[in-house]
Amino acid sequence: MKKTALIMAGGRGERFWPESRMDMPKQFLSLTGDGRTMIQLTVERIKSLVDIEDIYIATNESYMELVKRQLPGLPEENILCEPVGRNTAPCIGLGAEHIARKYGDALMLVLPSDHLIKYNAIFCQTLEDACAVAEQGGNLVTLGITPDNPDTGYGYIKFNPEQIVGRAYAVERFVEKPDLETAKGYLASHEYLWNSGMFIWKTSSILENLRAFLPDMYEGLERIRAAIGTPEQQAALEREFRGFKSVSIDYGVMEKAKDIYCLAGNFGWDDVGSWLAVGRIRKTNEFGNVVNGNVVTIDTKNSIIQGKDKLIAAVGLRDIVIVDTDDAILICEKDSAGDIKKVLENLRICNKYQYL
Amino acid sequence: MKKTALIMAGGRGERFWPESRMDMPKQFLSLTGDGRTMIQLTVERIKSLVDIEDIYIATNESYMELVKRQLPGLPEENILCEPVGRNTAPCIGLGAEHIARKYGDALMLVLPSDHLIKYNAIFCQTLEDACAVAEQGGNLVTLGITPDNPDTGYGYIKFNPEQIVGRAYAVERFVEKPDLETAKGYLASHEYLWNSGMFIWKTSSILENLRAFLPDMYEGLERIRAAIGTPEQQAALEREFRGFKSVSIDYGVMEKAKDIYCLAGNFGWDDVGSWLAVGRIRKTNEFGNVVNGNVVTIDTKNSIIQGKDKLIAAVGLRDIVIVDTDDAILICEKDSAGDIKKVLENLRICNKYQYL
Repeated sequence: MKKTALIMAGGRGERFWPESRMDMPKQFLSLTGDGRTMIQLTVERIKSLVDIEDIYIATNESYMELVKRQLPGLPEENILCEPVGRNTAPCIGLGAEHIARKYGDALMLVLPSDHLIKYNAIFCQTLEDACAVAEQGGNLVTLGITPDNPDTGYGYIKFNPEQIVGRAYAVERFVEKPDLETAKGYLASHEYLWNSGMFIWKTSSILENLRAFLPDMYEGLERIRAAIGTPEQQAALEREFRGFKSVSIDYGVMEKAKDIYCLAGNFGWDDVGSWLAVGRIRKTNEFGNVVNGNVVTIDTKNSIIQGKDKLIAAVGLRDIVIVDTDDAILICEKDSAGDIKKVLENLRICNKYQYL
Repeated sequence: MKKTALIMAGGRGERFWPESRMDMPKQFLSLTGDGRTMIQLTVERIKSLVDIEDIYIATNESYMELVKRQLPGLPEENILCEPVGRNTAPCIGLGAEHIARKYGDALMLVLPSDHLIKYNAIFCQTLEDACAVAEQGGNLVTLGITPDNPDTGYGYIKFNPEQIVGRAYAVERFVEKPDLETAKGYLASHEYLWNSGMFIWKTSSILENLRAFLPDMYEGLERIRAAIGTPEQQAALEREFRGFKSVSIDYGVMEKAKDIYCLAGNFGWDDVGSWLAVGRIRKTNEFGNVVNGNVVTIDTKNSIIQGKDKLIAAVGLRDIVIVDTDDAILICEKDSAGDIKKVLENLRICNKYQYL
């Protein structure tokens, strides 16, 4: 069956401020140090499975040019612009309608544009296995990540180790971000995976489920589909999207649907959720520092220092993130990386939009 | 007796890098936030005691223009340029010769250009009291600072509380920077003061002592004096200075001389020895931060943040010094402020002289 992909690239990626900005979010940045951006790596990663012509990018108007520039081989009509952000359910529905209209029923890989995967071959093999399961009946397949610590920052997937289809386990339920004690229990049970937000299904399967669980949205998506290729296309898209509720695919479909399966991924996944990820991804020196640019460090350890034009001198620091850009510099204690969003709130309150 | 002053302004002040540079050392910076530089404040502070025409500045060629610009009321001939730095003994000797040549025997206040004093009236009264003691015989008078903690970063002065002249105590001995245990003993004894490097004496007294303890240097200084106002002046200065040994006035004279007295100063002295001083001198906000410029702080305490043009966002920091300048930014843990000199060593090794 035809394999296609929908890569979701509408996020703002505030947690990589000041490198990421409203007009340059995380998926368009190169955070690995090899020069390629997150979205370029995402497309590159699946090239053995999906032709570039069969890859769709869901984003919004303001990132249209960035997508074109960073993915010059992609057909322009494969860039789907959401008029407004309405979370993942409408985004995925829009992609499914476009793909179904072009190819009829087809396999559809739904992938975030801003995750990193270390072992591409294992990843692609896992996707192949997932496709095999998704081709059967109306199965919805998701990739779970085998947890290596009781992280409270992810949703978890409870699977049933007794109920197997191909290489996938049946999913019993999705659970929201747990507290630490609960997460420790999940880890010990070996029956929970992290919810990675990567899905594999047929267009027919997901559209059928949208019809069942989000019927109003489904109706709107069908009207959008009917207008594709007509003079009405843009107006229909605008009108219907503005009418959609903001719903995630997890809440809107996955938590309610039947025939959900998951594959346990062990392919070196990293959701690159904050600057701390750079310390995991990039090569650290003998002091545990990741250093880039014109930097002098004295007695500084386990820190991430990303220089720009200015000389940065770091003295006596431990676990500090320093990111310099043309107009702003961040100095952040690693454990406080989650508070970067408060900087942005503060800037908004002070009308300093030029830094957002 | 005529009161004159010699203000020593040849230091490089590396500990305020990157704000201070080779071509802009600490004494020419405004660190108090009131706009006036350290050397301007030093001159201002003694204006009730010494006329501007009677103030001499010892510095070196590279800071000549800075002195002229920052002290426009000062006669140009009062700026004494040391051809090479040879520590304080030759510097003070040169000042004494110039002052003695112009005024004959005169009182001479020897003051650093880069200290801060909070209570000017008390300071000036202390200087008056010191002058009264210095006018008697060949007395050499120094100002000691009443210690409020067992600081190991200062030399100490042991005085004899039984032996008093005017408001001064006789000095028993000068001691080098002690270890912490010794310093604690000094503090508890109430018979030790910090050596502030401020001296009051007659030109005749100091020259007599230079003749006694540094006879070669004294001879050279006399030859310089003989050449003042002749076409030979600059050549003599160059020749003699290059021949001088590098000797501090403490080691060369004070530790050997008789008739040394000290006054205990309680005038809010601060030698502004590092960026930490800025936290003492400037107003801190309710989080203990000293913040200047375009700065956003989130959960940041007891830190010193000096911004420039860029936005600085500080998140989750404790006891961090951040100083931004046009071409370099320092991020330094407070306890490591002493290691800033290692940054400069590093820059020298890497031939990055533009940052020095």
